[in-house]
Amino acid sequence: MRTKPQPTTAIATSDSKTIRVRGHDLVEELIGQATFTEMFLLQLTGKRPTPTQVRILDAVLVTLMEHGLTPSVIATRLIYHSAPDALQAAVAAGLLGVGTTFIGTMEGCAALLEEMLAAPEGLEARARDIALRHKEAGKPVHGFGHPHHKPDDPRTPRMLAVAEGQDVPGRHIAALKMLSAQVDAVYGRHVTINATGASAALLGEIGIPQKVMRGVAVVSRSAGLVGHIYEESQQPSAAFIWETVDEAIPYRAQDAA
Amino acid sequence: MRTKPQPTTAIATSDSKTIRVRGHDLVEELIGQATFTEMFLLQLTGKRPTPTQVRILDAVLVTLMEHGLTPSVIATRLIYHSAPDALQAAVAAGLLGVGTTFIGTMEGCAALLEEMLAAPEGLEARARDIALRHKEAGKPVHGFGHPHHKPDDPRTPRMLAVAEGQDVPGRHIAALKMLSAQVDAVYGRHVTINATGASAALLGEIGIPQKVMRGVAVVSRSAGLVGHIYEESQQPSAAFIWETVDEAIPYRAQDAA
Amino acid sequence: MRTKPQPTTAIATSDSKTIRVRGHDLVEELIGQATFTEMFLLQLTGKRPTPTQVRILDAVLVTLMEHGLTPSVIATRLIYHSAPDALQAAVAAGLLGVGTTFIGTMEGCAALLEEMLAAPEGLEARARDIALRHKEAGKPVHGFGHPHHKPDDPRTPRMLAVAEGQDVPGRHIAALKMLSAQVDAVYGRHVTINATGASAALLGEIGIPQKVMRGVAVVSRSAGLVGHIYEESQQPSAAFIWETVDEAIPYRAQDAA
Amino acid sequence: MRTKPQPTTAIATSDSKTIRVRGHDLVEELIGQATFTEMFLLQLTGKRPTPTQVRILDAVLVTLMEHGLTPSVIATRLIYHSAPDALQAAVAAGLLGVGTTFIGTMEGCAALLEEMLAAPEGLEARARDIALRHKEAGKPVHGFGHPHHKPDDPRTPRMLAVAEGQDVPGRHIAALKMLSAQVDAVYGRHVTINATGASAALLGEIGIPQKVMRGVAVVSRSAGLVGHIYEESQQPSAAFIWETVDEAIPYRAQDAA
Repeated sequence: MRTKPQPTTAIATSDSKTIRVRGHDLVEELIGQATFTEMFLLQLTGKRPTPTQVRILDAVLVTLMEHGLTPSVIATRLIYHSAPDALQAAVAAGLLGVGTTFIGTMEGCAALLEEMLAAPEGLEARARDIALRHKEAGKPVHGFGHPHHKPDDPRTPRMLAVAEGQDVPGRHIAALKMLSAQVDAVYGRHVTINATGASAALLGEIGIPQKVMRGVAVVSRSAGLVGHIYEESQQPSAAFIWETVDEAIPYRAQDAA
Repeated sequence: MRTKPQPTTAIATSDSKTIRVRGHDLVEELIGQATFTEMFLLQLTGKRPTPTQVRILDAVLVTLMEHGLTPSVIATRLIYHSAPDALQAAVAAGLLGVGTTFIGTMEGCAALLEEMLAAPEGLEARARDIALRHKEAGKPVHGFGHPHHKPDDPRTPRMLAVAEGQDVPGRHIAALKMLSAQVDAVYGRHVTINATGASAALLGEIGIPQKVMRGVAVVSRSAGLVGHIYEESQQPSAAFIWETVDEAIPYRAQDAA
Repeated sequence: MRTKPQPTTAIATSDSKTIRVRGHDLVEELIGQATFTEMFLLQLTGKRPTPTQVRILDAVLVTLMEHGLTPSVIATRLIYHSAPDALQAAVAAGLLGVGTTFIGTMEGCAALLEEMLAAPEGLEARARDIALRHKEAGKPVHGFGHPHHKPDDPRTPRMLAVAEGQDVPGRHIAALKMLSAQVDAVYGRHVTINATGASAALLGEIGIPQKVMRGVAVVSRSAGLVGHIYEESQQPSAAFIWETVDEAIPYRAQDAA
Repeated sequence: MRTKPQPTTAIATSDSKTIRVRGHDLVEELIGQATFTEMFLLQLTGKRPTPTQVRILDAVLVTLMEHGLTPSVIATRLIYHSAPDALQAAVAAGLLGVGTTFIGTMEGCAALLEEMLAAPEGLEARARDIALRHKEAGKPVHGFGHPHHKPDDPRTPRMLAVAEGQDVPGRHIAALKMLSAQVDAVYGRHVTINATGASAALLGEIGIPQKVMRGVAVVSRSAGLVGHIYEESQQPSAAFIWETVDEAIPYRAQDAA
């Protein structure tokens, strides 16, 4: 006896001759006509995207795809070496690193922007309050600061410029800039808006729900990781990485207990 | 003491002010200028893609993104329900299903096309030989046949038409069509070229190495799965799926041994 | 130039003739002498376990291994069907479901027990406070309640009896029982301690850190999932599951937008 | 309309008061009475194991759990650093490396042993044939050779001694020894049986199906990885690994294309 309510799906249906995705005929309307980014937005939002949405999502996807030999990339290369016949597993291993430490700050920043936009006292007062409470707690503000890109993350102004060249409401970008001003004032020094902070604002402008923003990073990174797998297949690094790490981390003897 | 040769990477490098990907300045040349699909091709091949490459890769990425409640989608929805704070894990779980049973046939078909294109006796003779040896072994020819899309997979002619409208060498498509003709002749009935067969030919035309073709499907499916995660977050199905499966598969008592 | 402090590892080292794990010679002292559970405790804690630790960890590992066609099991069976040559991927897909919704409550309950044990006002007052604040917030108390095992989870008394038959300090068990009494009093009805609640207390008694308790469930479930993979290989269910789910969840048309 | 035959499961069933696993009452017969290894064998084979099966499986599980900073361990530590709130994802990432390159040789060796045991011409002739065909193909014989443990893998004689001290049929062990003799003769030098070769023979002796042998390694490694996660949580290495790898692998400039 079923006790759970029956769900439905609005994403896709098919029969022998037709596949419909989000109300569109895949063959007649989408293949050869939509780009990947348009199709991703249709899949996610259920609506044909505007050119502005496409351009902004492309900017975010391009920004997040690649940043060298990151933890995700190293994991992917090692797992590909261990299981070369299951490429999907190597990609999955790397994607499991798209977690709270790095990319999750995008969602954290988006939550702060939403909090500011809903605050009855206005952007400035709430931004100051956010900066103060993070400083007091000794916690970094999500979307701000970068270990290498100092004093400024070079991606951020370019990302914001892309959005500002488009027809967007601008509320999330305005909130991010206000938060940046208050962070600098409260901390008494300039702290860069980083690429995840800019991504949070851009994705907010085009209506990507905060709860699946991490999914945008997952998609972008999956493409980046496939590129690393191909390079790994042509010029293997995994055995070298293994040896290098093993030598770099010494064994600390403990008494047998 | 290092024993492994030192590898290098040609993908990316960065300093505090600059990020270079495949020889291009990410900020100055790519963000806001390249689409996701262009960036993916640059990341994978190391070269700026041609419009033809972009258009064909988009067609493949759009085709493979979504096909309803597949095993990958079901796995993703169940894992999202079990670990909603780790969206990347739900995507990874579904991507682990981009394996040999379904998508892997793309690589198998690509290998047959490569075999034909390298055969000294020519396409037709080798295609006939391939069809015969599969029939004798009782094995399906990779890239042919579909359980639901009969007699023809509707995606295939559209995908081929997209490629034929572009400036491509056409060798892989010609090989696929020849193989199709010989499969029909040898089996004595029409067997559709399916979407993975068409994908193999299209990706071959634009120079995607056979060994990472599965990666194209992984990227496309990652976007599809993010769409399902968002729908799952709005209208949960996982508890219903669990209950439905549990009721549909009865327990078969065995004696305690 | 290295900026990060160099870590060390105390887990293992080896040369051509010897492998040492936690200070013990793997060949001379462990293989053929230690059980899996003893080795797991040595690996995790760095110390040879007591018989009490082994017996209690065995009880938890046995309890959590199997509970029928759970979301994790369904995901594993579907992924095994999609990628049968990568068994590790099918196990990994299922393990990704050992997340916050079900198993994570073990850690949540352990945190409550630690809070009680550290409370200056004593167990009873803090237990009452915990029960009250959960009731007011309308949130379930981690480690309490079960959708099917009502009014009582049959595993719990047995697990507690195993621990009480051993030489353990008993502080975590006492805390759990006090919390149970206060939950019943505050909610005005009996709410069962479930198996994750009992696991939290038992693992606390033997010194397993709260932060890796989920790892115990991961290990136990990995064995359970391997059993399901073998049954799936002998009597496939994945195609049936796919069809069943696809039929049970109808498509909800939306207008093309 | 269902088209797939309805499967059943013989693993578990439950109602509000009872959970049965493989025909046994979990609470009355297993918790507090079975060890993890006994429960794993029951789960996998459907039968209560003999003491010999338990002792041999324990020897294999203990052998494979830990071997220092392997690719799986490095992947797990990096992913744990990136997503510390999803411990299961870190374990899964490492387990994805239990693939064909290292552990998969266990299954390959088991297949060779099965081939020998089924050969009408007898063990010796088939072993010689196997060694010859691998030598001619320039391929290593699965289960033989080790990059570090030369001339002999120290685990192997100990593992075989454990099995020989038990009441086992001895057919798989005899086959492995015969294969070893022929490998040495054909290659003209001593090649060690490694731990995966010994594991293949031991698991064959106790009736573990070749097709799920990799699952034994997955279970064993999952415990090893949890130990590394705990050490990582106490003494982080991931940022150091990242920096070390990034510095050790130089960027190779390519012209922008």
